[in-house]
Amino acid sequence: METDTLIEDMASVQAHYRAVSANGTVSERSSTDEEMLDIATDTRFEYTDLADKSHGSTNLMDTLDDLPPGIGQYDDFHTIDWLRDISRDRIRHRQISKRKQDSCFAKVKVAHDAWSGWVCVLLVGCATGAFAAVIDVGTSWMSDLKEGICLEQFWFNREQCCWAVNDTTFDQNACSQWYSWSHLFGVSESSVFGSYMIKYIMYVLWAMVFATLAVMLVRVFAPYACGSGIPEIKTILSGFIIRGYLGKWTLIIKSVCMMLAVSAGLSLGKEGPLVHVASCCGNIFSYLFPKYGKNEAKKREILSAAAAAGVSVAFGAPIGGVLFSLEEVSYYFPLKTLWRSFFCALAAAFVLRSFNPFGNDHLVMFYVDYRNAWYLVELIPFIVLGVFGGIWGAVFIKGNIRWCRYRKSSNLGKFPITEVLVVTAVTAILAFPNPYTSDYQRNLTDATTDFTSANIDSGVTRAMWQLALALVFKMVITVFTFGIKVPAGLFIPSMAIGAIAGRMIGIGMEQLAYSHREHYLFKEMCHSGHTCVTPGLYAMVGACATLGGVTKMTVSLVVIMFELTGGLQYIVPLMAAAMTAKWIGDAFDKEGIYDAHIKLNGYPFLDSKEEFTHTTIAADVMRPKRTEPPLCVLTQDSMTVEQIEAIMRETDHNGFPVIVSAESQYLVGFVLRRDLSIAISSARTNHDGIVSNSVVYFTNHVPVNTVVGGPEPLKLRKILDMAPVTITDQTPMETVVEMFRKLGLRQTLVTHNGRLLGIITKKDILRHIAQLKNQDPDSILFN
Amino acid sequence: METDTLIEDMASVQAHYRAVSANGTVSERSSTDEEMLDIATDTRFEYTDLADKSHGSTNLMDTLDDLPPGIGQYDDFHTIDWLRDISRDRIRHRQISKRKQDSCFAKVKVAHDAWSGWVCVLLVGCATGAFAAVIDVGTSWMSDLKEGICLEQFWFNREQCCWAVNDTTFDQNACSQWYSWSHLFGVSESSVFGSYMIKYIMYVLWAMVFATLAVMLVRVFAPYACGSGIPEIKTILSGFIIRGYLGKWTLIIKSVCMMLAVSAGLSLGKEGPLVHVASCCGNIFSYLFPKYGKNEAKKREILSAAAAAGVSVAFGAPIGGVLFSLEEVSYYFPLKTLWRSFFCALAAAFVLRSFNPFGNDHLVMFYVDYRNAWYLVELIPFIVLGVFGGIWGAVFIKGNIRWCRYRKSSNLGKFPITEVLVVTAVTAILAFPNPYTSDYQRNLTDATTDFTSANIDSGVTRAMWQLALALVFKMVITVFTFGIKVPAGLFIPSMAIGAIAGRMIGIGMEQLAYSHREHYLFKEMCHSGHTCVTPGLYAMVGACATLGGVTKMTVSLVVIMFELTGGLQYIVPLMAAAMTAKWIGDAFDKEGIYDAHIKLNGYPFLDSKEEFTHTTIAADVMRPKRTEPPLCVLTQDSMTVEQIEAIMRETDHNGFPVIVSAESQYLVGFVLRRDLSIAISSARTNHDGIVSNSVVYFTNHVPVNTVVGGPEPLKLRKILDMAPVTITDQTPMETVVEMFRKLGLRQTLVTHNGRLLGIITKKDILRHIAQLKNQDPDSILFN
Repeated sequence: METDTLIEDMASVQAHYRAVSANGTVSERSSTDEEMLDIATDTRFEYTDLADKSHGSTNLMDTLDDLPPGIGQYDDFHTIDWLRDISRDRIRHRQISKRKQDSCFAKVKVAHDAWSGWVCVLLVGCATGAFAAVIDVGTSWMSDLKEGICLEQFWFNREQCCWAVNDTTFDQNACSQWYSWSHLFGVSESSVFGSYMIKYIMYVLWAMVFATLAVMLVRVFAPYACGSGIPEIKTILSGFIIRGYLGKWTLIIKSVCMMLAVSAGLSLGKEGPLVHVASCCGNIFSYLFPKYGKNEAKKREILSAAAAAGVSVAFGAPIGGVLFSLEEVSYYFPLKTLWRSFFCALAAAFVLRSFNPFGNDHLVMFYVDYRNAWYLVELIPFIVLGVFGGIWGAVFIKGNIRWCRYRKSSNLGKFPITEVLVVTAVTAILAFPNPYTSDYQRNLTDATTDFTSANIDSGVTRAMWQLALALVFKMVITVFTFGIKVPAGLFIPSMAIGAIAGRMIGIGMEQLAYSHREHYLFKEMCHSGHTCVTPGLYAMVGACATLGGVTKMTVSLVVIMFELTGGLQYIVPLMAAAMTAKWIGDAFDKEGIYDAHIKLNGYPFLDSKEEFTHTTIAADVMRPKRTEPPLCVLTQDSMTVEQIEAIMRETDHNGFPVIVSAESQYLVGFVLRRDLSIAISSARTNHDGIVSNSVVYFTNHVPVNTVVGGPEPLKLRKILDMAPVTITDQTPMETVVEMFRKLGLRQTLVTHNGRLLGIITKKDILRHIAQLKNQDPDSILFN
Repeated sequence: METDTLIEDMASVQAHYRAVSANGTVSERSSTDEEMLDIATDTRFEYTDLADKSHGSTNLMDTLDDLPPGIGQYDDFHTIDWLRDISRDRIRHRQISKRKQDSCFAKVKVAHDAWSGWVCVLLVGCATGAFAAVIDVGTSWMSDLKEGICLEQFWFNREQCCWAVNDTTFDQNACSQWYSWSHLFGVSESSVFGSYMIKYIMYVLWAMVFATLAVMLVRVFAPYACGSGIPEIKTILSGFIIRGYLGKWTLIIKSVCMMLAVSAGLSLGKEGPLVHVASCCGNIFSYLFPKYGKNEAKKREILSAAAAAGVSVAFGAPIGGVLFSLEEVSYYFPLKTLWRSFFCALAAAFVLRSFNPFGNDHLVMFYVDYRNAWYLVELIPFIVLGVFGGIWGAVFIKGNIRWCRYRKSSNLGKFPITEVLVVTAVTAILAFPNPYTSDYQRNLTDATTDFTSANIDSGVTRAMWQLALALVFKMVITVFTFGIKVPAGLFIPSMAIGAIAGRMIGIGMEQLAYSHREHYLFKEMCHSGHTCVTPGLYAMVGACATLGGVTKMTVSLVVIMFELTGGLQYIVPLMAAAMTAKWIGDAFDKEGIYDAHIKLNGYPFLDSKEEFTHTTIAADVMRPKRTEPPLCVLTQDSMTVEQIEAIMRETDHNGFPVIVSAESQYLVGFVLRRDLSIAISSARTNHDGIVSNSVVYFTNHVPVNTVVGGPEPLKLRKILDMAPVTITDQTPMETVVEMFRKLGLRQTLVTHNGRLLGIITKKDILRHIAQLKNQDPDSILFN
């Protein structure tokens, strides 16, 4: 019987295999990792011997006993290999815990290792809170500087200045120590026009000074400090190296320039930059703990927590921050990180609250103590706001990306300072006369009290006009502002636009309800003594809708909004608006603003939200393609140092598959270019026997005759990855994409019936996706 | 030069390959999936031809044009293959969207397909809310039935009864329509002892009746309805089939018996069972949408959302519910599911609120409107509560698991009804005299007002005694209650224990602060007019700590607690207690109660929280082992129907690898036993030409001479998975475990240099992990 023969045949092979893998029992080995690797390699190699019928081998040690430094690290603008880094960390962890019994010091080391993650996120949280507090105080002082100065204590802002002289009420004018510029310049307060003009001019002047300072500092000291930083942080967290992006200079310059830019009155916020600042803290503190500092994959756990802390201090929303990190920025988010992120976010919020920069007990910027209920009929305007948010989001993303692309490709990109100054001047000149544009906080909170009388009088009409003008102005200027070379967040301007739109609809609804008080729709709303409609709630809902439309955030957005305002009972209106905004926005384009900027910059970001729905298979994507030169491979035991160096010179691949031999193209392992190059040059320097003619062995067993006759062999088993991830050429691309996303691969090898056919890298996949979308595949710039 | 030869050689092979894969361009194919598969198979086969040098083949259609029904489904108690299911769904999705242009009906179908997920979770949310409302109302009615009855409208509970007769105040005794049993039985209210005894007896009697009913219903109609259900739901969500566990009978019986069990006064809650009820709704509604009902992996997205809705209605905590689903129960939780879960949870909470079962505007059971601040010094008792929670959690898990194991292995398991009755009787008899055990709601809310005077008088001393007794009683009885054969949740009893402990510490702190009012530690606390300490806050923190210790929940727990009580400002105390409880608990054992029960039942659950830290490699774990018979494989084109049937008869493997030939053991693909068996029997029935001697071809090309000479060949290409996941034998097990978890694999094939060596299934991994922990590997029961 054929089957029997087959089974017997397999049995014999497997018996051989089993005989040589005498150590392959399941019980946990107490041996060291080195021994384990040796046993493993022995097993593997014996089996190869069996198959290849080669005889007479000698088991030498590796040429490089200690790996030269630098192996396991990454070059700038390269993609990391999560599986390898996580595995490196486990080996490190095992080595520490193995020596646990040895000494007291070792025990302390184990405990330190176990706790270092918590300590690190605690430090990051505290530092983030402190930075946020300093930035808040600084911004407030600089913003007030545009209006006047506290003569005796110039480092006080207006509010503190008035407190210092014990003025019990904080009134606009009744503060004896605060000198407005018009007052200082001798213009009498009675000359309304003169005083106004002085104020106007000083406002514009200070704005220009702040903006110039900000853009110059960024240009000179830290070019990475500009923008919101979230697209880059998303890319970094997805496993990409951008050296210096989270460094100390970026941190300092971004913090300072953020204050300057916000104080300049530009249409930007400090929420996105705060996430960047927090991530810088995360990066810097991670170097205190080698576990995180020296392992790029582990470092990203700290960075995820730091991002949560950033949002936490930006909005006083620790839970929202964690969800933001989970939903929007993070890529690899195990549950342990969830818990640590929460801890980090809470620590940051707690520290910020201790500094109490807003002068009240609430953590939040826009605390709204609305107690009014909302009614089902109000869902209609809320959904209208959602539609507005979705459409605006789509328009904004398209407009902003087009403008940024124009900036990149035209001469405009060469004059960033001029651009910033022009935008600042336009913003300052147009914004000052309109109370709704010069101070965004008022849009969300104060104005509630303006319309309690709710009669259509000239006040309401004028306010509506001002709101409409502010809306148009904000919408236009924000498109041009986001992307200029100063730190610039998008949250606050987006929310401000939504809040203005919301307030307009809210006032409209109020007028409608007031004039149709007896209509059955409004009867219930106006039944008790209070006002029929709360326009502030509409502002909140509108802010949520536009922010949702722009960033395509979902759960985290709703949670941030209700943490921001303290209104747990408004979760349904917020949700309705956010969902409508997302659905409407997705109908235009599924990409959020951050993803659009990632794509604009050509970062290798494999979005985990997008579904891959095409019918291609691995064979379609893998390299080499038909028109390309064949795949560069190394053989395990027949190439010389010279040959390998030639291959490395002639190609720029980041790694090379190692196969059994030219005749038998079965995959043995994978070696990274960087490791190989470091190892060869290190061996050439330190070992005299290694010459150009030395044969390179990626195996553990070198045939005896080679050693006796020729030059000393170079053994590089240690740098060979013997477990590269492989797929068959028939694997559907959706599975391949899933594997890249979930396992954090850098590349995978494609085989057919065991034979090596080609390779697929992350870049290949991104190019493939871009091509399927009819986009330019060359827009993916990095590896 | 050797390298050149190699490169040339590779080039020639690849040129061949490229020549035959003429269609392998990257551009998206407009061809159908069928065509795509054909091209793909052609490519693959041509390449095999090239390698195997076989000539003269004819391209016939598959024997089975339409796959017989049942292929792609799973047997009961089997593990699903996520990758395969997700890929099946994408094929289905592409088939629908391809026909989008054809007709208006097709367009509707596409829209329906896109929206069905949202519609489904909306229905699930509404149904869950409705079930929760019915259960709440029913429980309240039955609980009151133990005390008395509303004679005129017997279907009213006490509160409604009093409302019905327009008694404006809801006082204990001033309700004319409500008749207590002692009153009905003619015992005059003046005879205090007689009235008390009647109450006592009726209480115990009704409890016994309810418990008997509950256990009988469960026994007779739905054995799966007992317990909390969360361990099983976790297992199901991790990709396991338990038929009927989420069926309609389980839903109905669980809902009814939950009311009975809670009303019986047993030390159990309805929170866990509500998650089960919600999941049943999810399962039932998913059958309305074939996209979800017929695809086990997609169905689990709905079930994840349903679990969130369950917690949402249990605690009125939609965000906590989503986080609970994410952190505790779900396995595969893409961001789309996060958003849908939130929607589902919110819909459920909204429907429940519309029914308004608690008679007030709050969604929550234990709404606490504390406005008092907490002070830093209070963190010490909070951390003490955390320590208590952690220790109690560890003790409870150990005790409960030991008791459950004893029940399983001894005769006790044969008398579930007796056990329930004994536990009920003991609970009822001991609980009735103590006000702190008979009504758990009071523990969390009412008692705040009891001690405002805060003098050590006999009232406080008596309350402390009663609390201590209640604590001991609750702790002991809960260990024996969780696991009896009625629906039984663990949240409420755990929280009650913590709340009692917290209240005791709170009262202690209050006395301490009151008697040392002038001490510098307490000075700040007692400065204003209000009470120094809020014992209710301690109860809340204690509840959080014990629940954390028992379930090992973290972020979701804190969020549930603050949504439950509405106290956003108490997030730091809650967090401190929860973290301490988790750390202390983890020092004993990292397993939560649900994981412990999963292990007790031997379910194949691969915990994504546990880290695999051992040094074993794939070769150590794979089957066959040395002592075992060789791996069962099929060849792609040389085995007869008879031979395959023999192999299937003699082995019970769930799938078979297909290799090139007995001589060339390179992997071609993988075929599932179930599919193979269905296909062969279907072919034997429907095709007369298929006889025992027919050769089975897993390829598309059948050599001509075979067709001419012998019996009709059986072509089974369609059921072959040509892209099985493979790993090398050197792959570290931590990577393998990671792949199983993240990709949701059912098995992976182990190769060495392309040759098939063995197979690793999920069960093998679980057995391996159990072995490494020195546990019995045979405790893993299912595949």
